[in-house]
Amino acid sequence: MSTQGRGSRALRVVCEATTQVKRNKNISKLQAGYLFPEIARRRNAHQEANPDAKIISLGIGDTTEPIPPYIVDGLKKGAEAMGTLEGYKGYGPEQGYAPIREAIFNRLYSNTGLNANNIYVSDGSKCDIGRMQMMFGEDITVALQDPAYPVYVDSSVIMGMTGDYNGSNFDGLTYMECRPENDFFPDLSKVARTDIIFFCSPNNPTGSAATREQLTQLVDFARKNGSIIVYDAAYALFIEDENCPRSIFEIPGAEECAIETCSFSKYAGFTGVRLGWTVISDKLKFADGSPVAKDFVRIATTVFNGASVISQAGGIACMDDEGWKEMNELVAYYKENAKILKKTFQDMGFTVFGADNAPYVWVGFPGRDSWDVFSEILTKCDIVTTPGSGFGAAGEGFVRASAFGHRENILEAVERFKKVYS
Amino acid sequence: MSTQGRGSRALRVVCEATTQVKRNKNISKLQAGYLFPEIARRRNAHQEANPDAKIISLGIGDTTEPIPPYIVDGLKKGAEAMGTLEGYKGYGPEQGYAPIREAIFNRLYSNTGLNANNIYVSDGSKCDIGRMQMMFGEDITVALQDPAYPVYVDSSVIMGMTGDYNGSNFDGLTYMECRPENDFFPDLSKVARTDIIFFCSPNNPTGSAATREQLTQLVDFARKNGSIIVYDAAYALFIEDENCPRSIFEIPGAEECAIETCSFSKYAGFTGVRLGWTVISDKLKFADGSPVAKDFVRIATTVFNGASVISQAGGIACMDDEGWKEMNELVAYYKENAKILKKTFQDMGFTVFGADNAPYVWVGFPGRDSWDVFSEILTKCDIVTTPGSGFGAAGEGFVRASAFGHRENILEAVERFKKVYS
Repeated sequence: MSTQGRGSRALRVVCEATTQVKRNKNISKLQAGYLFPEIARRRNAHQEANPDAKIISLGIGDTTEPIPPYIVDGLKKGAEAMGTLEGYKGYGPEQGYAPIREAIFNRLYSNTGLNANNIYVSDGSKCDIGRMQMMFGEDITVALQDPAYPVYVDSSVIMGMTGDYNGSNFDGLTYMECRPENDFFPDLSKVARTDIIFFCSPNNPTGSAATREQLTQLVDFARKNGSIIVYDAAYALFIEDENCPRSIFEIPGAEECAIETCSFSKYAGFTGVRLGWTVISDKLKFADGSPVAKDFVRIATTVFNGASVISQAGGIACMDDEGWKEMNELVAYYKENAKILKKTFQDMGFTVFGADNAPYVWVGFPGRDSWDVFSEILTKCDIVTTPGSGFGAAGEGFVRASAFGHRENILEAVERFKKVYS
Repeated sequence: MSTQGRGSRALRVVCEATTQVKRNKNISKLQAGYLFPEIARRRNAHQEANPDAKIISLGIGDTTEPIPPYIVDGLKKGAEAMGTLEGYKGYGPEQGYAPIREAIFNRLYSNTGLNANNIYVSDGSKCDIGRMQMMFGEDITVALQDPAYPVYVDSSVIMGMTGDYNGSNFDGLTYMECRPENDFFPDLSKVARTDIIFFCSPNNPTGSAATREQLTQLVDFARKNGSIIVYDAAYALFIEDENCPRSIFEIPGAEECAIETCSFSKYAGFTGVRLGWTVISDKLKFADGSPVAKDFVRIATTVFNGASVISQAGGIACMDDEGWKEMNELVAYYKENAKILKKTFQDMGFTVFGADNAPYVWVGFPGRDSWDVFSEILTKCDIVTTPGSGFGAAGEGFVRASAFGHRENILEAVERFKKVYS
């Protein structure tokens, strides 16, 4: 195309408007932006309108405490090593280096019949879920808890596993309602068979953890249906209840029907460091008998290059005795926050769930629109929460308060809540 | 499903075999594993068969020199800060923190009419290409250079943009042959319109860099067709020739038809650190007028959580004057390696391309199967290269030698090559 002559210039103006590349029809099905950027937008708008407001965030589940010394030292040494001939590392295995895979296995999975090669280290669970969805492709059916971490729905929509939005939900997805009435565990006898079942326990956002009996039901259900459970255990270390397994692989048979994904984000304050892992047994097979792990690796090697070696060095420190102790102290700190928040709302007469096995408090505002409650709390308390309906239709009437925060902010939030809601 | 009773036990045995989840038909189209793990497998097999062999890798383009002191210090400080209350960072913006977006913009794009908000920082180009493909979805057509970095083809196959493998290529993809005969630049008058055009310059694997005239042709071609160019500039800093632009955005009009992706991997030895960026102007629009950048952000916020804050701290150091100097010295070191390798093969009478503007040397073995040549070099020289056909059918008859390596290993490789091929 020439730029000379008036005719071609006129044509160029037309061409400048848009390309002729069709927008992905699946992305256009999404109704709004991803939940947390939307919340950040509203928070920022409130801050701009009220420049003096000291906003406290109990919104996105984002860690706030510094990474403890032993683990930070691991990160620092990981960085330092990159400046030396002996310590320098280039591309690593996309699945993570052997020492961290072994450290995670030894610390968390040694009693499961799995092995260190079943641990696939990554830059986080969210990213692994994206790669899993790319692996599964569009020709599969999906079930998930309602309410749930929005990534399951949104990534299913993006990959074309759903129909259109029907006003409250996406056609083609199977929503398993988890409400106080059913102890936040679905009645599986009424759930249709799907290929994939996303299941998060301890649950984000409700904070409820499934018991051994419930998970046994889930595994039996998946095996009967030939389904694959994608088990999101990102909050497993927050579990106190001994009858709530910290891994789906504690349930016999899970290795043949489940993928587990987990993360250092909420354990070690690694939300910004980026490190997680996914566990897939070699026994997990697609219908044609081919191993799921093989395709997961194919995706990882094609569109991923592994977690940062510096993050991996930090992850190894987390699994050492000293780092493990630090992580558990950090988890206990946030758990204490959760209990403070839960007690506050309970004392004011609210119905509250979560907190016992999770860093989230799920507060009921029966009959109210949860975005309205979100706005009310933001306006009256200068506190950011997350509206329950942002996690799905069954989250309506609740807001989630995250327990990630400095203790002083949690205590200040408590005072503000009391002023408005006592 | 009960485990009691012989009947149900027998049923359970049947269930144990596989799930009923269909394997993604697109993944089953792929003919082999991702190229570089396959090469690593052959290297390891050679090492096992010859335990005393001192193998030199000129295979995957993987950096070998330690990260220079100022940049390492940036990484270290990034890690240290995470242990302090003031310096701790949780989830960051998925697009990267403002300071690194501004630093990249000021250093590399300040003369383009773009702005810092057009820079999307990530964990690397390969990962960004995966996210772009997820964004584009299956209903688009793709053209790419042949030979090319295998990620373009493989990710297109995985996302369903292609038909089956036809024995040499994938149906539905448009392969633009780049050979010595056409100066490694396709005759665009013979190329069909596609939605997306992957274009890598300096090219991996051929090492050739497109001139300003060639890129102007490419941009005009894309604008005429309403196509989007995905311009992979991961090796741009290796360009010496002043007539070869380091960014597609040096070409007028590119902001309306091109995405550029780039990386710290080969500049600062960040292959293991993981840091890159993608540039999308707000002027780049899909056919419906919606901005491409908006959908790219939607994908990034849904299945990604940003690059490690520690890597970002290192990236800022790279863009400081001192770090910039260090990066350029590192690039110069690898360039010198490339020139040594090129001269070696030229002196032995081979036809050789690349090296002048890239860290790759593209050596012709006319009429020979490039996997055979790869095996011959591995067996006779204990040197790993990459067979040209691994990058596409038009790469047949060539092998790629990577210039990433310690100087002493490059010089040792030269001696070994001379013994066998002089």
